[in-house]
Amino acid sequence: MDRNNKGFVVIIGAGVIGRSWAASFLAGGYKVVISDPQDGIEDIVREVLPKYLDGIPGRSFSEREIQNLMRGVDFEKDLAKAVKGAVAVQENGPEKEEFKQKLFADLERIVDAKTLLLSSSSGITPQVIGATMQDPNRVVIGHPFNPPHQLPLVEVCGTADADTALLERVMTFYRDLGKKPSQLKKPVPGFVANRLQTVLVMEALRLVKDGVVDIASLDQIMLNSLGPRWASVGPLLAGHLGGGNGGLGGIISNILNHLAQSMDIEPIDDVSIAKIAAMAEEVYPPVDKAYLADLRDRRTIQIIEMQMAECDSSEN
Amino acid sequence: MDRNNKGFVVIIGAGVIGRSWAASFLAGGYKVVISDPQDGIEDIVREVLPKYLDGIPGRSFSEREIQNLMRGVDFEKDLAKAVKGAVAVQENGPEKEEFKQKLFADLERIVDAKTLLLSSSSGITPQVIGATMQDPNRVVIGHPFNPPHQLPLVEVCGTADADTALLERVMTFYRDLGKKPSQLKKPVPGFVANRLQTVLVMEALRLVKDGVVDIASLDQIMLNSLGPRWASVGPLLAGHLGGGNGGLGGIISNILNHLAQSMDIEPIDDVSIAKIAAMAEEVYPPVDKAYLADLRDRRTIQIIEMQMAECDSSEN
Repeated sequence: MDRNNKGFVVIIGAGVIGRSWAASFLAGGYKVVISDPQDGIEDIVREVLPKYLDGIPGRSFSEREIQNLMRGVDFEKDLAKAVKGAVAVQENGPEKEEFKQKLFADLERIVDAKTLLLSSSSGITPQVIGATMQDPNRVVIGHPFNPPHQLPLVEVCGTADADTALLERVMTFYRDLGKKPSQLKKPVPGFVANRLQTVLVMEALRLVKDGVVDIASLDQIMLNSLGPRWASVGPLLAGHLGGGNGGLGGIISNILNHLAQSMDIEPIDDVSIAKIAAMAEEVYPPVDKAYLADLRDRRTIQIIEMQMAECDSSEN
Repeated sequence: MDRNNKGFVVIIGAGVIGRSWAASFLAGGYKVVISDPQDGIEDIVREVLPKYLDGIPGRSFSEREIQNLMRGVDFEKDLAKAVKGAVAVQENGPEKEEFKQKLFADLERIVDAKTLLLSSSSGITPQVIGATMQDPNRVVIGHPFNPPHQLPLVEVCGTADADTALLERVMTFYRDLGKKPSQLKKPVPGFVANRLQTVLVMEALRLVKDGVVDIASLDQIMLNSLGPRWASVGPLLAGHLGGGNGGLGGIISNILNHLAQSMDIEPIDDVSIAKIAAMAEEVYPPVDKAYLADLRDRRTIQIIEMQMAECDSSEN
């Protein structure tokens, strides 16, 4: 087996997430070794991977290039054989504490000292995953947004005592892959993206359940307002830019806290508003505001024009 | 004054929302009459409107066309003179019940029988606005998403007893303008888009406040995951497509309810899940799923490639 180039990454568990990660790693110049006990996994992966490779933003591989990339895929059920010499292990097994604890304790004994130990877990903290390891601080969460080969986000989170150099190595590893990793300072259930998704979708479902709006209209409302805005600038920058001179702090006091209270959401206290406002002014200073507002507008218009060019049958 | 073509729309209140609406109406082929008591409003509006007209998705007016459109702008502080013969009145005054109640009671006496009476209110229900009118059912909310000339959404909502023919006229009026109106079955504070925005931004602020993530990372997380997804398909279709054979119902039971509970959000009960799942299957039937998934992927990839082509200085 040819394991040259940038080296190889081991994918543990080739379900929906694992096989999509495999496409990202192949496109990023790595070979992959897939370790999954399921019978027939090889056929499934060999069938879907070329399609995934054909759908990676910013890349357009020819059929021949895809065939070449596919030569970089190997399968090895024996974990010790699979991981020897790997650049990184990306784990995508069941979301069960005992499973991950045993797996990572085993991995620690058999991987090289430099191999990155990464888990795609969306809910179990690195502390818990590493509980039975000699060095639990070696586990780093690299939580992708589904599907990983398409969406750039990777939420990176180490244990409270994780080595900053290790976390920086992980951030660089994902960046070099063409991903957009974001580092969390501490883990919370669902990390950030899934929490944001959950609060919004639960509210959407309540509005449908209460007969305020139907499903198709709710989706159209998002497509025609918040979706293009949040794909152009994030929600906090959007608030900061939309808040006039008051910036994000003004938006919280004057608008968000009021509507939040009528929705039974706890308002943000004044001390925290002041802190958040100061942070917003620092990261998005007044001198950049005109540029960022222009970026927001250009991107928003492009997205709406893209939607117009390609209407979907669900429009109502 | 030349009031030919499709007729004219009266903009009451030419603040940020009103003047942006003016651009939409001009671009949609109407003349506009602006009624705002503020001194100097004429100069402000004449300065910003050409810029707004230059930033309407799907349109690209030449300088000459913009000059021509600007000839369709008139100012009239006297309400009775302003509204005579109008196709519609779009009200954008202060969010104060008494203000709107008096205004709409006045309007009812002076407008033609066919003139649409529309309010941009984001929070006051049509019932309340119309409380002192002879026919409160004439008021219809046409709530835009800011800025109206850029974002296609208009949330349309009438009183509980509103005439369906009137609501259909309002929907057609906004559609003909190139907007994407969505009809709500009943009003709730903040209507739909602002409620969805509020739950998400409040959660984002809490995560920043609690030290889980910094402001720039939070915005990047949205840009690299949910933003492109929700600008491609709405949140409920995204869940329905991502839920495998279980569809939206499966996603609620298997994923959303679990994370929601750990976030102290009330889960959706089983009876409601079954109803919502049935509605989702009806509006997005199995036969359309492959097409919709493909639409989602194509749009998502386009948006991410657009972001790549034009990076912003706030990337971290």
